[in-house]
Amino acid sequence: MVIEDGSITSTPGFQAAGVACGIKPNGKPDVAMIYSQRACVAAALFTTNAFKAAPVLYDQDILTRNSSGLHAVLINSGCANACTGQRGLADAAQTAAAVAELLRTGPDAVMVMSTGVIGAHLPMDKLLAGVHSAARELSDDVEAGHVAARAIMTTDTRPKEQTVRVGIDGQEITIAGMVKGAGMIHPNMATLLCAITSDVRITPRLAQAALREAADQSFHLMTIDGDTSTNDTLLLMANGLAEMQMIDSEGSPAYRAFKEGLTLVAQELAKAVARDGEGATRFIEIHVQGARDKAEAKQVGMSVARSSLVKTAIYGQDANWGRIICAVGYSGVEIVPEKVRVWLGDLELVRDGAPYDVDEERASEILAQPDVPIRVDLAQGNAEVTVWTCDLTHDYVSVNAHYRT
Amino acid sequence: MVIEDGSITSTPGFQAAGVACGIKPNGKPDVAMIYSQRACVAAALFTTNAFKAAPVLYDQDILTRNSSGLHAVLINSGCANACTGQRGLADAAQTAAAVAELLRTGPDAVMVMSTGVIGAHLPMDKLLAGVHSAARELSDDVEAGHVAARAIMTTDTRPKEQTVRVGIDGQEITIAGMVKGAGMIHPNMATLLCAITSDVRITPRLAQAALREAADQSFHLMTIDGDTSTNDTLLLMANGLAEMQMIDSEGSPAYRAFKEGLTLVAQELAKAVARDGEGATRFIEIHVQGARDKAEAKQVGMSVARSSLVKTAIYGQDANWGRIICAVGYSGVEIVPEKVRVWLGDLELVRDGAPYDVDEERASEILAQPDVPIRVDLAQGNAEVTVWTCDLTHDYVSVNAHYRT
Repeated sequence: MVIEDGSITSTPGFQAAGVACGIKPNGKPDVAMIYSQRACVAAALFTTNAFKAAPVLYDQDILTRNSSGLHAVLINSGCANACTGQRGLADAAQTAAAVAELLRTGPDAVMVMSTGVIGAHLPMDKLLAGVHSAARELSDDVEAGHVAARAIMTTDTRPKEQTVRVGIDGQEITIAGMVKGAGMIHPNMATLLCAITSDVRITPRLAQAALREAADQSFHLMTIDGDTSTNDTLLLMANGLAEMQMIDSEGSPAYRAFKEGLTLVAQELAKAVARDGEGATRFIEIHVQGARDKAEAKQVGMSVARSSLVKTAIYGQDANWGRIICAVGYSGVEIVPEKVRVWLGDLELVRDGAPYDVDEERASEILAQPDVPIRVDLAQGNAEVTVWTCDLTHDYVSVNAHYRT
Repeated sequence: MVIEDGSITSTPGFQAAGVACGIKPNGKPDVAMIYSQRACVAAALFTTNAFKAAPVLYDQDILTRNSSGLHAVLINSGCANACTGQRGLADAAQTAAAVAELLRTGPDAVMVMSTGVIGAHLPMDKLLAGVHSAARELSDDVEAGHVAARAIMTTDTRPKEQTVRVGIDGQEITIAGMVKGAGMIHPNMATLLCAITSDVRITPRLAQAALREAADQSFHLMTIDGDTSTNDTLLLMANGLAEMQMIDSEGSPAYRAFKEGLTLVAQELAKAVARDGEGATRFIEIHVQGARDKAEAKQVGMSVARSSLVKTAIYGQDANWGRIICAVGYSGVEIVPEKVRVWLGDLELVRDGAPYDVDEERASEILAQPDVPIRVDLAQGNAEVTVWTCDLTHDYVSVNAHYRT
């Protein structure tokens, strides 16, 4: 497997564009389009929030109706088209129809995603003008993908992209993804806005299975603020251009190789989201080991990752292990406190449930780095999981005190 | 029922003291003692955190062993005596023994509570000197209770006390409580440090039942930061001095009257804690109605109360109802989005799941007040619950980035 600096258009057969149509008041790009001339197998996961945004409802419907494959996805930022009732659904459908007409595809071959302010209606005049511009500017150049990745940003400070090449049957296939998200991030069964392209040949059922497994190993192990958004969407488009046998068995080496590549792309994108969390100054990686099973390890890890007190302590570069222990203790997992060990980097802060090597000077050095590794050993089994989050800072509060989500 | 400005010593037969022994570096009071010459029925709830602090483990043991009643509780701030192993347990026992000796009670008639930094050992020389001073200064004056309430504060900005007089059988009884807590507050089955005195005559079983019900209607409906502490303790001491029949039946009017008074004291103390949340500028009261049952109403209310995005929006005086809707949507409760209504004060922001009367000017006026009332109607039943929290501010981050809990 080879990791590359690429974009969504690094995958053969995919074109993209990013344009500014005026939804964002600052004039930055706010419409992204991804297109494959060859019909794609589509797999997707959506938010579990009961208030599903109009584009989520529209796409869920498309996925059940669509039989001839997906050709394009249109993503706008600056307006989430959430809590917008019947008009919101009509706007989503009209957007998709406009894309389909311009690209000469069937009306069910286009999906839409939106992110930004909740409760506002899409400015359809601006958006439709943006759709026209985007269709004109479609290109398979890697730069076109970079612009698309910028066009889906809201409070993100940088675009987040990941490309890998995977060898399957002596042939190299590509998996390329882009993601946005910096706040209202606590993915649950699906996540934020993420589009992944691939030229793999795979059945729809296995595409969905691989996407689900990749999400469980990536976005579902990450949180920024514990808020699960109304718009979370993770989409995989596979156009099957690679010269390879169709992947149609979960037991095949080809399926495993593809899933491994897809998981790596999803993990790198999830880590990039945590690293760019609203106001974040530190990326926090929490490794929980010695659990009885993975679910238990995840529960403990996410309890620490969600703790406002752990996150503010790390922002303050304070090796406040008591707060880590506290969050482990209220996670709901049955543990033996006297067995628990906690490390900050290579510094063992807690052994057997009590302070051990609390070297404040060494701890400060570790906490001065941009990446903060925390390890918790429950010493009651062999399962382990790594979860990701970021610190809670003054800037998180500033960003969210005045940003109208 | 009469509400009074009182203190823990407003209850006949109770004495208290608060002194400074030097655990807090700033020289403020850090040792509180409450004493009843008459043996008390004791009821208590403790943290559900798996890492229980030494005083919690000690008190749980006392409660099972104690048969002749409780006479005193000794509370120190500045050091939580949590994650301190065998030495921590020995320190808790030594503190209780010193109090028992000074007050000439049995060794099992004294409980201890601690709050402050996790993982540090109690400075026993200082603490034992403080115990001596406190015993000397015991007084039934109302002022002595006020000083005790100050001596248990950590990041609290003010003492929190509540006294009520309840008529039972033509006799007036007293219920008086004090509480501390401003961060690491998400009580679960018990809460922070809270001591309540009463002269009611009640059996131990019913004292525990009343305390549990009162907690469910108060501290369990409140959160500051979602972190459940290692030291949470809620203690009721009832010395039975009131001239009344023993309350020995849950069906009796006397039990109901007492429970009502106890619940009011607990609710006012819980609200005072939310109001004094670390860095808080707004007290937020979230009323959820139209739920199928109370558990469902609480789940929705606590989901909104825990949302960092709702809390930062209110800090920024931004009527960001989308975030309220979003938190209702991911609460895990099955709802019908198209039925949901949301009010900010008397302003109906959302009707039938869509924006309704979003009068930004009026919303700003409401959000400029220190108390922010939010109402959510799920329109699928008749159950309702009110929960309390505070906003998430720059000062919360400042307080916790550098405070060693």
